Amino acid sequence: MPAPPVGVVGLGQLGGSLAVALAAAGRPVAGWDVDPAARDAAAARGVRITRELAGVVVLAVPLPAMATALDGLTVDPDATVTDLGSVKRPVLDTVGRASGARFVGGHPMCGTERSGPAAVDPGLFTGARWALCLEPDTELHRWLRVAGVAMAVGAEVVPVTAAEHDDAVAAISSVPHLLAAALAAAAEQSGPLALALAAGSFRDATRVIGSDPAFVTAMVEGNAGPTAAALARVQEQLARPWAELVAAGHAVATRSRGRRTVRVPLDRTALLALGRAGGAVTRRLGAFVEGWVPAEEP
Amino acid sequence: MPAPPVGVVGLGQLGGSLAVALAAAGRPVAGWDVDPAARDAAAARGVRITRELAGVVVLAVPLPAMATALDGLTVDPDATVTDLGSVKRPVLDTVGRASGARFVGGHPMCGTERSGPAAVDPGLFTGARWALCLEPDTELHRWLRVAGVAMAVGAEVVPVTAAEHDDAVAAISSVPHLLAAALAAAAEQSGPLALALAAGSFRDATRVIGSDPAFVTAMVEGNAGPTAAALARVQEQLARPWAELVAAGHAVATRSRGRRTVRVPLDRTALLALGRAGGAVTRRLGAFVEGWVPAEEP
Repeated sequence: MPAPPVGVVGLGQLGGSLAVALAAAGRPVAGWDVDPAARDAAAARGVRITRELAGVVVLAVPLPAMATALDGLTVDPDATVTDLGSVKRPVLDTVGRASGARFVGGHPMCGTERSGPAAVDPGLFTGARWALCLEPDTELHRWLRVAGVAMAVGAEVVPVTAAEHDDAVAAISSVPHLLAAALAAAAEQSGPLALALAAGSFRDATRVIGSDPAFVTAMVEGNAGPTAAALARVQEQLARPWAELVAAGHAVATRSRGRRTVRVPLDRTALLALGRAGGAVTRRLGAFVEGWVPAEEP
Repeated sequence: MPAPPVGVVGLGQLGGSLAVALAAAGRPVAGWDVDPAARDAAAARGVRITRELAGVVVLAVPLPAMATALDGLTVDPDATVTDLGSVKRPVLDTVGRASGARFVGGHPMCGTERSGPAAVDPGLFTGARWALCLEPDTELHRWLRVAGVAMAVGAEVVPVTAAEHDDAVAAISSVPHLLAAALAAAAEQSGPLALALAAGSFRDATRVIGSDPAFVTAMVEGNAGPTAAALARVQEQLARPWAELVAAGHAVATRSRGRRTVRVPLDRTALLALGRAGGAVTRRLGAFVEGWVPAEEP
């Protein structure tokens, strides 16, 4: 079966990078953006611009625009719809409900603090984890189609439920954004001398808050429960004796982990177990997928 | 008056980089390290290895070793003694008291999470801020000698009191290290899936905790009062509504600031005012220094 065409709605950093990477890989890719400049930039790099989409339709728009992203577009009734949003339960409740069993939620763990078509980079997905939701009613053949798109641009697919995804990104994305904002705002209170002395550790710690504040706010407010819970876990850590806290953080940050190759049957339970083990899928092999799980270095 | 010789005690990342940068600039530089490998590496790059030090003697050893760094070495009684430690009040209370008016505390705001002679980089100080303490009893001619060493390797000198320095670095260095440790330790609790999905924002936010835990612990515990106060200010920020917090952090992290050149008389009050304004000294001009202060971009 030939790979289905891909239609990308929203041609900013993530959607534009995906469309251009697929076009560069020789895959038929169409796209649309409300911004004519984004359309022109993508068209110049091999993306067919159209309002008629089929195959795998990727919603690559900001979270607040997700529910209306398909307004005015014509989508093949058999198309599989996916998205690149940074929270998954709210998208499942809106777009997912509207698209029914055709919907497979996704979230590539890449992107930078830059945005828009000027930040398009077809190498953005190479080696990145791409979370892909396997809900109880997800049709496995549609999940595999979207996984094929992710793997075609070099990503590794992490099978998750929307709830597991949202809990995990609260800890590793939402909370880092809030800590960076709090650190920057508190340093500002300390005055010009503190900001003048700010060096590498401060710049690393606050870089992420250079992202579009509307995007960051939508991410944390759209995932408020898990974010609050993850922030509370960080606060508990901050109450530990400092020497103990520093040693624990150092151990996590510097742990060297290898990978062990595994084969997993095309089965929801087995795929989700791979994701929970910290592994990812790297290719389809008939009735199996090949992937890896972390392995402690000897 | 010719530039005085420099003697560097401790030839790891900071001390080794300083000694090698000075040697490359043609300045007479001697050094010592308890580790023969560090001595050999520095000698190979033009540093004279000796236990007899004069001119400006730089203590480039970890904080716990600072008080005994000169044991077994012969130091010219007229030498000016300075240090590169990341906290200043405790060093002033120990080394400062032992060296009397000959002591000028310093702290270059550079270095990476790497350490030891393999991390030596003579370009490390280029463009970095170098905090240099002007206490009520600091002899200005000695302060200028140490400032000359910092400027010779491309740093910009920030005049501060030890107390001002320690408050500022608590906010922009100690707290970022603790937040990074708490973030990493809390993500570990979230399990393998969260760590597998961890991408750019998490890696940026936790990179700093890759530093030697003994170094980090000495820094935060040696500056416990200001660090606890700065951490409390971050906690207050975290209690703000998220949209407001994100907007405030973004504004600080992305503010574009220019520089306005200024001349400042060689006077303690004027120099400290320059530091409090977020400025720095870049060169000596007779009875003045030239420097800059931040200026809002038009």
